[in-house]
Amino acid sequence: MGEPSLQPEVMRRLADYIVAARPDDLPESVRREALRSFVNIVGCTLGGASHHVIGLADDVLSEFSGPPQATLLGRARRADVLHAALINCFGSSIHAFDDTHEQAVVHPSGPVAAAILAISERKRIAGAEFLLAFALGVEAVCRLSKAISVPPAKGVFAWSQTGITAGVGAAVAAGKLLELDPSRMRHAIGIALSQASGFRAMFGSMCSSLMTAHGAQTGLRAAILAEKGFTSSEAALEGPNGFLQVFAEQADLHALADDLGTRFEILRNTYKPYPCGVVIHPIIDACLELRRTHQLEPADIASVSVKVSSKALALTDRRHAKNTLEARVSLYHWVAVAFIRGTARIADMDTKSAVLDPEIVRFQEKVSTVSDDSIATDEAEVTVSLQDGRSLVSRVEHCAGSASRPMTDGELEQKFIGLAEAVIGPSRTRKVLEMSWNVESLPDVGALARAAV
Amino acid sequence: MGEPSLQPEVMRRLADYIVAARPDDLPESVRREALRSFVNIVGCTLGGASHHVIGLADDVLSEFSGPPQATLLGRARRADVLHAALINCFGSSIHAFDDTHEQAVVHPSGPVAAAILAISERKRIAGAEFLLAFALGVEAVCRLSKAISVPPAKGVFAWSQTGITAGVGAAVAAGKLLELDPSRMRHAIGIALSQASGFRAMFGSMCSSLMTAHGAQTGLRAAILAEKGFTSSEAALEGPNGFLQVFAEQADLHALADDLGTRFEILRNTYKPYPCGVVIHPIIDACLELRRTHQLEPADIASVSVKVSSKALALTDRRHAKNTLEARVSLYHWVAVAFIRGTARIADMDTKSAVLDPEIVRFQEKVSTVSDDSIATDEAEVTVSLQDGRSLVSRVEHCAGSASRPMTDGELEQKFIGLAEAVIGPSRTRKVLEMSWNVESLPDVGALARAAV
Repeated sequence: MGEPSLQPEVMRRLADYIVAARPDDLPESVRREALRSFVNIVGCTLGGASHHVIGLADDVLSEFSGPPQATLLGRARRADVLHAALINCFGSSIHAFDDTHEQAVVHPSGPVAAAILAISERKRIAGAEFLLAFALGVEAVCRLSKAISVPPAKGVFAWSQTGITAGVGAAVAAGKLLELDPSRMRHAIGIALSQASGFRAMFGSMCSSLMTAHGAQTGLRAAILAEKGFTSSEAALEGPNGFLQVFAEQADLHALADDLGTRFEILRNTYKPYPCGVVIHPIIDACLELRRTHQLEPADIASVSVKVSSKALALTDRRHAKNTLEARVSLYHWVAVAFIRGTARIADMDTKSAVLDPEIVRFQEKVSTVSDDSIATDEAEVTVSLQDGRSLVSRVEHCAGSASRPMTDGELEQKFIGLAEAVIGPSRTRKVLEMSWNVESLPDVGALARAAV
Repeated sequence: MGEPSLQPEVMRRLADYIVAARPDDLPESVRREALRSFVNIVGCTLGGASHHVIGLADDVLSEFSGPPQATLLGRARRADVLHAALINCFGSSIHAFDDTHEQAVVHPSGPVAAAILAISERKRIAGAEFLLAFALGVEAVCRLSKAISVPPAKGVFAWSQTGITAGVGAAVAAGKLLELDPSRMRHAIGIALSQASGFRAMFGSMCSSLMTAHGAQTGLRAAILAEKGFTSSEAALEGPNGFLQVFAEQADLHALADDLGTRFEILRNTYKPYPCGVVIHPIIDACLELRRTHQLEPADIASVSVKVSSKALALTDRRHAKNTLEARVSLYHWVAVAFIRGTARIADMDTKSAVLDPEIVRFQEKVSTVSDDSIATDEAEVTVSLQDGRSLVSRVEHCAGSASRPMTDGELEQKFIGLAEAVIGPSRTRKVLEMSWNVESLPDVGALARAAV
């Protein structure tokens, strides 16, 4: 049987660029941001490893997993690379504490890192090649998501951007480390696209992170299949009834395949200071700022009015979350936490201590919302009416952790330590953190994964 | 963490019906059609087992597969149940020779059978329970596909109906055999829905059947996860940004959840006499009828004009297929085969002997097409202009194998034997065929799978 040819231009340019790219081609700024993205996601993966949902998935699916090829970071176990990619990515996403592209609401690093950490334990991979593959995978996710959701593209709101683009990121990065030629790289992308899935109704449930993890697993599988000659369709990406057609009303091909090697979307990647939906972050900033500046006590507050974009409100308009997964996307929960505790940590969405805390539950009754389409998704305005009749306003133009106010390397380290220490202890945390910052100089990246247990 | 509650009415009715159903509840006609569907799909699975694409996928992915829990039918190997579900379903679909619901263009039995054959080797399952679970899984696929694609529903043509509904069929059937309670059954369905994927650009490539197989695997996994307490979202099916919203412009909830237990979509299931896209079948019937009636030789024919529905044409308008996968959905290929060979068998889409046969390739130049929206998808009109100036017309109102002209049990047996004998030999073929017809009386259905090697 002959191999189908893949003519379409956009798919070809994308694959050609990925195959040809060399570590030295990455500008210094891109190399640095890739490192920051990688450090952040390794911390998130370790922090998620002890979450009970990850334990549940790993325990149930381990019955079907294959030989111990790759480390489950932060867990005392190894498994076949496809299982490892699923579980590691699942952990990186479970606290909703990962990274976000500034324009596309997509979380690119988790599926890419999980796929190539698994590859690096199956095959010896040098650090510079690893970081390049990571940067290319993140680039592919961000560009694809932009192309189907950021104007001038006309997107379809209901899709999970991460769910439907994660697989391509994993496939591209894994395919790069498997040294696929351009034809096989196009097939890897096509196979991954054919399994793209995930919609927003699942947000707030265990399936939200499972969709991302599933992308990591299917994308890695796509690259491995393509390496051995499994093929896809020439129409997969831009053809009739292809990915761009089904997932967007109008795709933006320029965002996807123009300026490859000169425009880098990873430079717009941002990291979350708070473990919740990213559109809640400016609201938390505003609440914390009001609390601090005016030394407010919860009892002082008669009511809180939150003005956000309609997009942000649609995602987070969930009063009285019943569990951790709902809490992480509930605006009301975090407003209450911020005013009552003055914090926004993982411990603040633990069920017993926070989500079901009567004081936090009651406070949410005081919170009302207004949507305003002149407001950006990283922007919010919070107005507090006090019992004494005064009214205080805080408007946050760009939240902490946004591209305009990026987290510093030091803040990223503190976040990493906060996540990892409870799982692998202080000395291993320090070792893995150091190896992550220095990943480019590792002769064998598998050593990093093996150290993270 | 509390368990999310699942309130929505349609999801609840569907799950409640599935959980409550008992073997005796199936009307005799439904029981018979379920048996016919099962016999047909076991034959297809065996026939596909030796296909080189199945060998490729199994070989590549066996590196990652787990313990030998379940049989790969027609292959000399066992693997974990998730791998077995993938490979067995992949085989059942690879020749495009499986079943099709009369209204929804969906192929329901492959993913359902593969998932529950795997379950029956992990747990002892009696035949009557097995056939019930099979019938329920097929029902779920057909109803879900109708609800998003058959008027009054307004569908989105670009989706692979089988790709996006297969997982629910596998989850429902496997969940039934795992004896899930109503809550866990709803979660199993929700998890499967969250991984629904597949679009038509992949048709004609290796990914076409992989998408179906992926549904079998993810659906089975969803049921196993739900059994152990993994949960999904209450909005998964009918909620905002849920499955029905993303995969249809307007869903038909009545088709999905009305008359459960009294209306059975499996009665509209049909089996293919020819190993190609089902919309090509009436065209083949018309060509074979013209050839037979008028004793035509290829040299007699100056040109052939084919009139079909625009839907059928969009799917099959592929002149000069380059390989088996393209040939199976090429109208031109099969018109040439029918007039030159007077047959339409798997051997007629083998690359060397058929797809690249110069006579068959040349004949396709004589074929032109017209689309006519007054024509149904199981209907075609073929007009032959002869070298002597005469013009002959054959109009097929309902193709062989359609609901109006169903294949007989004897024809199904012949098809089974034709598929299976080349793979497992005559005596095992006869044994598995007999066990398949008598599946209800087997005390342990796993014995059937183990016999099919």
